[in-house]
Amino acid sequence: MYYYAEPVGRLIEALNKLPGVGPKTAQRLAFHLLRVPRSEAVTLAKAIVDARDQTSDCSICGNMTDRDPCRICADEARDQAVICVVEDARDVVAIEKTREYHGLYHVLRGVLSPMEGIGPEQLRIRELVARLEGSPVQEVILATNPTVEGEATANYLARQIKAQGIKVTRIAHGLPIGGDLEYADQVTLWRAMEGRREL
Amino acid sequence: MYYYAEPVGRLIEALNKLPGVGPKTAQRLAFHLLRVPRSEAVTLAKAIVDARDQTSDCSICGNMTDRDPCRICADEARDQAVICVVEDARDVVAIEKTREYHGLYHVLRGVLSPMEGIGPEQLRIRELVARLEGSPVQEVILATNPTVEGEATANYLARQIKAQGIKVTRIAHGLPIGGDLEYADQVTLWRAMEGRREL
Repeated sequence: MYYYAEPVGRLIEALNKLPGVGPKTAQRLAFHLLRVPRSEAVTLAKAIVDARDQTSDCSICGNMTDRDPCRICADEARDQAVICVVEDARDVVAIEKTREYHGLYHVLRGVLSPMEGIGPEQLRIRELVARLEGSPVQEVILATNPTVEGEATANYLARQIKAQGIKVTRIAHGLPIGGDLEYADQVTLWRAMEGRREL
Repeated sequence: MYYYAEPVGRLIEALNKLPGVGPKTAQRLAFHLLRVPRSEAVTLAKAIVDARDQTSDCSICGNMTDRDPCRICADEARDQAVICVVEDARDVVAIEKTREYHGLYHVLRGVLSPMEGIGPEQLRIRELVARLEGSPVQEVILATNPTVEGEATANYLARQIKAQGIKVTRIAHGLPIGGDLEYADQVTLWRAMEGRREL
């Protein structure tokens, strides 16, 4: 059965592999890319390849970067006494967007997950421990996700880092701002109660 | 403010220009493309450029094609006596997917729209009239969309083609299969009543 010119079929197939992009959306995106000025389509294609070829992991923090060390590690204005540990590079972006944190980062590239065979050796934990050794760091903030694996990873790291004599903190869990008590799940609500502070 | 390595920022920006892709989705897609095997990202990039560079308009029907004439126009097994007129190449795909139509196509590349300054000269109407001249075509099916512009275009074409002594038909409008009478809009419902057939 003939549906598409072969190069169009290939484009739809490739787009269909993107997360959240089903066959219908893939077709819509493909026809869009065939309709826009050629330069716009080429810009996207080039951006995909460039993002792959011009970025690598920062040798210090593990964040995605186009220079090594990355802009954050190289920025002397940032607080060198605090390191925030996150699961992946997207979390760095999320925290940077708050514009409130001015310390450094350490990207683990995952969480401990025995089920998936991910142990401490698969994460950038050894690099973190080495980085803290003899450093001016006074506090490590554990900002892994509030999931079973994220909590387990935070607990594991806390033990390791405390053994190095450095203060370890965990980001707070509770009701999201603008959230509604009535609609919060029980675990979140209990965490919010537990984490209550005196006013 | 630093958020992304520059090549990543450029990729997010390019993805953000796709229809239905907001900043959050663009970021998710970008990080996906940074995580998958490099070959998969390159395949997508190449598919985008190839789809542009290896397709053109069929010189007979105007459909998007990677050879000229296109596979449908070149297929002698298709009914050469029927031409289905559609607005754009996506409509050809939609009709082909029914697997029920075996005639030829003619792609208008738009509809008459005085508001947007699109007159008969901007569409592939002259090509259609020329194509019908002295051809074995016995029926032209007008399959423009059931919109104000689509109807106006169909009416305009009907006059032109009837003047050439060829039978002109319009696709039926009515309740979609699986649709619910209660939820149909009034215009669709009236069209369904109007188009009733004796059983």
